[in-house]
Amino acid sequence: MRVALLGFGSVGQGVAKILGEKDLDLTLTAVADSKGGIIDPGGISIPEAFSRKAKSGTCGRPKLSALDIVNSDAYDILVEVTPTHIDDGEPALTHIRKALALHRHVVTSNKGPIALAHRELTDLARRQGVALRYEATVCGAIPIIHTLQHGLLGNEVKALFGVMNGTCNYILTRMEDEGLTYDQALGEAQEMGYAEKDPTYDVKGLDTALKLVILANTVWGMDAGLKDVKVTGIDLITPQAIQLAMDQETAIRLIGEAIPSKDLLRVSPRIIPRNHPLLVEGTLNALTVVTDLAGELTFIGKGAGSVETASAVIGDLLFIRERYAGRP
Amino acid sequence: MRVALLGFGSVGQGVAKILGEKDLDLTLTAVADSKGGIIDPGGISIPEAFSRKAKSGTCGRPKLSALDIVNSDAYDILVEVTPTHIDDGEPALTHIRKALALHRHVVTSNKGPIALAHRELTDLARRQGVALRYEATVCGAIPIIHTLQHGLLGNEVKALFGVMNGTCNYILTRMEDEGLTYDQALGEAQEMGYAEKDPTYDVKGLDTALKLVILANTVWGMDAGLKDVKVTGIDLITPQAIQLAMDQETAIRLIGEAIPSKDLLRVSPRIIPRNHPLLVEGTLNALTVVTDLAGELTFIGKGAGSVETASAVIGDLLFIRERYAGRP
Repeated sequence: MRVALLGFGSVGQGVAKILGEKDLDLTLTAVADSKGGIIDPGGISIPEAFSRKAKSGTCGRPKLSALDIVNSDAYDILVEVTPTHIDDGEPALTHIRKALALHRHVVTSNKGPIALAHRELTDLARRQGVALRYEATVCGAIPIIHTLQHGLLGNEVKALFGVMNGTCNYILTRMEDEGLTYDQALGEAQEMGYAEKDPTYDVKGLDTALKLVILANTVWGMDAGLKDVKVTGIDLITPQAIQLAMDQETAIRLIGEAIPSKDLLRVSPRIIPRNHPLLVEGTLNALTVVTDLAGELTFIGKGAGSVETASAVIGDLLFIRERYAGRP
Repeated sequence: MRVALLGFGSVGQGVAKILGEKDLDLTLTAVADSKGGIIDPGGISIPEAFSRKAKSGTCGRPKLSALDIVNSDAYDILVEVTPTHIDDGEPALTHIRKALALHRHVVTSNKGPIALAHRELTDLARRQGVALRYEATVCGAIPIIHTLQHGLLGNEVKALFGVMNGTCNYILTRMEDEGLTYDQALGEAQEMGYAEKDPTYDVKGLDTALKLVILANTVWGMDAGLKDVKVTGIDLITPQAIQLAMDQETAIRLIGEAIPSKDLLRVSPRIIPRNHPLLVEGTLNALTVVTDLAGELTFIGKGAGSVETASAVIGDLLFIRERYAGRP
């Protein structure tokens, strides 16, 4: 099947790298970033795309836009990995809507459109008879969406609890291990490249809230949005609070919780017992799924990283290839 | 689809209970234990099977055997959950061979046949165009086989490390927490029902070795058997060794390891850092999968229990129903 890739940052480059290195029976026929794009029905040269990006700042040519590619006949699956914008989900939302309308499958790592318009987009995909998959939007390399949709058949999911933001988890772990203040740990995370220059989106809990909304809408068919989540970040946590938790064989983590029976969607710093599987260190992510039959299951892995997040995109692509290859 | 259930112990009763309580579009048309069986094309009354078991010692009637059911036309999927026998895998091995030969799907929790004859049985299932699924053989409620076969598409699995025996993990955790000797902790585990009267199979590492063989054969298409695994149990571990590990912020766990690049299949007590996700407490199971793209992923959950193990069987049944329903 033919793949068009929109976005050539960390995730997009990871996807391109894997498509170039592994023989997955998928051909990259178009690629674009915010400055340009390129279509080649015979298959894009991936090394050349990297080298154009390094030299000219775009992986393609300035005359061709992402939207031109979406509207073209060059692809069967759109991979939308442009940066997340949580206010309106654009330009990804438009890309995804158009591709689905054109009966193309869509794979995305972009939390904006999926958190803002999950129901609209999944309904549209269903009507069009195509797949919309977004494993990479939540917990990076952990195949949690796949597990919730396919791995736990027969189970009713009662609740979800997760450490879903590596930046916050790194800061809290460092405050714990070294007795740093929040500002010191944040500064260190920024130096290490684990936190943005403006860390608001992560440390105020918005990133976790978006992921929680995506999971809740996926598992329970909710139509929840950011406004339905009670959100408290980690920026007011003191070294004293961390120490108090440690004194009681616990630790503080930023936890996203979804418990539909209590009508609860919440992101907040919570006290976790030292030996609970959810209590992970550093930039790891962890998600505990509470089910009626299988009990509590916890999934731990890398929540970010170019190749790790791309791994989730590739998994979605192969899922689609297996299910739909051979269809007209 | 019509289900025949062989085995009415802990797992079989869990499966029957779930089939009775949930509307899964599966009909239980036959059930047997070692003392008798019953066929009812209109659907077995599950409460009556439980009540017969309580009163007469068999869920069915003495005149009908498990093999009679296997050879009958009464079912589409055989659920084989009789007790594991690691020497010859019987009688489950015969049941599974015959059912596959008759073009029936098979779901099993029985480690014997899958560890002893994985290649023969998977080849036979493929030739017959039917499914052979065995999620419940490894790590109870954790959908690890599904994840390895379907959830990590595109990834190459490089190595597996796991805490796969709840009995051993309970004993080691209690030695750690309470300073018990091995014999004291074993006695306690036996009182709690976590260890058998003859604990050899668990504490000598054989159960873990069987699960490791099943995983290795599944992931890498090996044709390994118990003889290929270097096995050391936990029965010689002293309180001093446990204390020494604790002094260094580590703990001892019985780990099954499979690293094909090193030609290594090994079960042995290993030192695990305190903050490693694999270090679980009590009867929990945990499995770390090392992949080329997604990095290290760890899966934690209940490795035993009637409903928890049955959850894995039910997941396999629904997987088959989704894939094959409507086929002749």
